[in-house]
Amino acid sequence: MVECLRVNLGERSYSLHFGRDLAAAVRAEVDALIKSGRKVVVLTDRNVATQQKAAVTAMVGDVPTLMFDPGEETKSLREYGRALDFLAEQRVDRTSVLLAIGGGVIGDLAGFVAASYQRGIEFFQIPTTLLSMVDSSVGGKTGINLKAGKNLVGAFHQPKAVYIATGLLDTLPKREFAAGMAEVIKYGLLGDATLLAQLERAPLTVTSPELAPVVRACCAAKACIVEADERELAKEGGRALLNLGHTFGHAIEQVTGYGVYLHGEAVAVGLAAAARLSEKLGLIGAAEVLRVEQVVAAHALPVRLREPLALDKLMAAMARDKKVRSGQLRFVVLKKLGEAATQSGIDPALVETVWRELGAI
Amino acid sequence: MVECLRVNLGERSYSLHFGRDLAAAVRAEVDALIKSGRKVVVLTDRNVATQQKAAVTAMVGDVPTLMFDPGEETKSLREYGRALDFLAEQRVDRTSVLLAIGGGVIGDLAGFVAASYQRGIEFFQIPTTLLSMVDSSVGGKTGINLKAGKNLVGAFHQPKAVYIATGLLDTLPKREFAAGMAEVIKYGLLGDATLLAQLERAPLTVTSPELAPVVRACCAAKACIVEADERELAKEGGRALLNLGHTFGHAIEQVTGYGVYLHGEAVAVGLAAAARLSEKLGLIGAAEVLRVEQVVAAHALPVRLREPLALDKLMAAMARDKKVRSGQLRFVVLKKLGEAATQSGIDPALVETVWRELGAI
Repeated sequence: MVECLRVNLGERSYSLHFGRDLAAAVRAEVDALIKSGRKVVVLTDRNVATQQKAAVTAMVGDVPTLMFDPGEETKSLREYGRALDFLAEQRVDRTSVLLAIGGGVIGDLAGFVAASYQRGIEFFQIPTTLLSMVDSSVGGKTGINLKAGKNLVGAFHQPKAVYIATGLLDTLPKREFAAGMAEVIKYGLLGDATLLAQLERAPLTVTSPELAPVVRACCAAKACIVEADERELAKEGGRALLNLGHTFGHAIEQVTGYGVYLHGEAVAVGLAAAARLSEKLGLIGAAEVLRVEQVVAAHALPVRLREPLALDKLMAAMARDKKVRSGQLRFVVLKKLGEAATQSGIDPALVETVWRELGAI
Repeated sequence: MVECLRVNLGERSYSLHFGRDLAAAVRAEVDALIKSGRKVVVLTDRNVATQQKAAVTAMVGDVPTLMFDPGEETKSLREYGRALDFLAEQRVDRTSVLLAIGGGVIGDLAGFVAASYQRGIEFFQIPTTLLSMVDSSVGGKTGINLKAGKNLVGAFHQPKAVYIATGLLDTLPKREFAAGMAEVIKYGLLGDATLLAQLERAPLTVTSPELAPVVRACCAAKACIVEADERELAKEGGRALLNLGHTFGHAIEQVTGYGVYLHGEAVAVGLAAAARLSEKLGLIGAAEVLRVEQVVAAHALPVRLREPLALDKLMAAMARDKKVRSGQLRFVVLKKLGEAATQSGIDPALVETVWRELGAI
């Protein structure tokens, strides 16, 4: 069965296809493209190619494929250049189509490659991790990292379709599944109290019967937010709300070096941090902070820094965050559990206190 | 006096400002931006910074500036990365503004940097060469080169305004001025028989009183074409017409290595090639080919390869051109002098004959 969800963005609209196994649907798409004279190439990572060999072959057959090392280090200018050279070598032209098969790293990198190769070619997202299924594969944000910070370079480039096959999660390492849960919890915290309550009642696992409907609910929530504010231009709220926990999380990733914390793990600490900041601003109470920490921890995720990190480095990393506008730090805060808002002009001393409580020195 | 021309592209509309000296207008813009709390940074090249020191200082004062070596080699992934790191280091954020002061190389590189840094910031074009004034600074095409070909990576990203100060051409080397004339002649050939006749009567020089009106006419022609087909999606004609001479020209640049021919010099040979190809297709006669060669040569530009180049390399370079669609070569041809059209499915043997006539072996 293939269920569908439409992301309405005018001429950039596209469908999200859901199912346990979507190999036949992807293969039909690939075959039709090739039959119409269009070239298809795949960017994927070594883990996916190994652990999901049968599924990948069923999806794409033997189209030219470029493999990347798993991990955030792949979202670099160097690997971006390697991908572009591969496309040129394969005589990829403006009518060709790129398939991104992998997690958020592959999706973000391949999306930016598709956005910029010959000033833009079409691409499909085939996410293989929970995190990319519920978050990064939908919405058209693509990008790579600079030494100075995460996702500092990129483009808005919507995919032509997203194939979300939850069966691919069967081989996902537990740590990766947990990392994806940080984004799922984020959706509950920022706008879906029912989802949050469900996660608090019983942690979600890869075998939960609720997994597929939860993935769909997260995608639906993301689609709504993206439709309303595709390019994150809203002065308040809007797409920026999806960054709940991410200003703190990105700082952790940057200070520790990419790969020490998985993105979702850093976001998990970031969610706890956002809750604490919201409490210090008088928006929520200590009981709510505890609830956030409990639901995060119940999904095998950290709520404090694992090792002490230098406070000044964390603060400096935040100052380089993309959400900074005209030099002012901007945070996503919780007005209550299930409702988030953007807030500027927050006293840096409050932020420092939060970092210290989480183990910064 | 500042004259204005508006490029109408909905919310991406902008003005082209014309005058001999626009330093005061640029400075007023820069001061207003800084006053409103926005950071301004400049990307420019060493020649401009040296030869137009007073003009540049008058325009931008002491805003942070990153300098590049002049020449096509600067449109590389490495220099792109250097520019991005500079922006991050300068704490450039989404509200900041980039000024591109230079020729086509700086404009293309800086435009792509602006398109992709933090997924897009505003930028201004301040062209300092004839070529960039009449062509590359208008229309939003930005990009860098790969080893495999020119402008293979980039984005459509319109500037917020373009300041075209023809006084800056006073220090432009003669060879650079001639290179710019190749694009001026291109506008005559593809759509302006009156302009072409004017250039045939008397070659344009930096001191011609007609220079400023000719620059404006070229910009107006480009603006019209871009308004009708911003992203070069028209199946026939449209923005692709601006590539008259460029499929041949890009191949020459790629085979010789960037910098041996200036872009305009390669385009000049390309215009002669496009005329010859059009003749072989029965569209124009030998007399018209001669007229094209004469007007090109009268502006101190080549109409044949300076040294023999390998035919197979030139053909291979063409096969990687962005205008290739689903493997088919596509050319801009002349239906008459003053009217161009796109044509697909051209016999490669005809193209090879043209290359041989121009000195390929």
